[in-house]
Amino acid sequence: MRLRELRASDRSTLEALIRGTEAFNAEEIDVALELIDAGLNPASGYRFIVAADERERALGYACYGLTALTDGTYDLYWIVVDAALQRSGVGRALLEATHAAVRALHGRTIVIETSGKPSYASQRFFYERCGCTLLARYPDFYRVGDDKLVYLLKID
Amino acid sequence: MRLRELRASDRSTLEALIRGTEAFNAEEIDVALELIDAGLNPASGYRFIVAADERERALGYACYGLTALTDGTYDLYWIVVDAALQRSGVGRALLEATHAAVRALHGRTIVIETSGKPSYASQRFFYERCGCTLLARYPDFYRVGDDKLVYLLKID
Repeated sequence: MRLRELRASDRSTLEALIRGTEAFNAEEIDVALELIDAGLNPASGYRFIVAADERERALGYACYGLTALTDGTYDLYWIVVDAALQRSGVGRALLEATHAAVRALHGRTIVIETSGKPSYASQRFFYERCGCTLLARYPDFYRVGDDKLVYLLKID
Repeated sequence: MRLRELRASDRSTLEALIRGTEAFNAEEIDVALELIDAGLNPASGYRFIVAADERERALGYACYGLTALTDGTYDLYWIVVDAALQRSGVGRALLEATHAAVRALHGRTIVIETSGKPSYASQRFFYERCGCTLLARYPDFYRVGDDKLVYLLKID
């Protein structure tokens, strides 16, 4: 596996990965694809890191960017790994590469939002294993019974 | 004072109000004006309530909208009152009208973000007086020494 920039030719593979996780609803998939389209233009501010295999096929990606109106705070908008490769280290490699990229940009903190639903337990466990700390829980944020959890990953 | 919808003819008055508060930096003023321009198109999702005097001159405004990927959570993006009319009830009227409008849209919660800087004490006191509850503090979010505070206003 290697990490590289986003390419236009990744789009259909990434769409299949996103759908294959079965973690996202139709609206979330639309947003994820909009960000991919935006991210192909570096001026958009949406930055991508793609994990690819030795044949250049995308295995997952991270999407992040500077949070508007802040100096040094970055949002991790999206991190997706091929459903067949969960818990294989691809997600951790993407998160570590995002951390390194944000440090190189003189960022201070990465903010990560995720769901408190039981079905997101593995995502929360992943962030906690990777050194993220839970900052806040917004009750019923996404919908009734679906809290928003906010994790911080500090750049040391 | 009466409350009404945003009009294109409000733009220059609102820009003068925003600048007159001396609460916003250049980047924040640009964002506020972008939202006003967007809000003139109802399809944008940025909703405005304008407080005006008997001659239709704008005295302040609130800007809010449905938070992406949520069912019933609204962001209060901006609330601005003429610097000469602070503490006169215009802000409270705008916040109460936003609350009523969000209720009519079947919203459940309004999320309000503000700064923890000493110079924002009057804004924080205003939100607390109006029934908002502090949910979270993001340390050094906007810049070092400038925390983000998140208040919730529940729709009962």
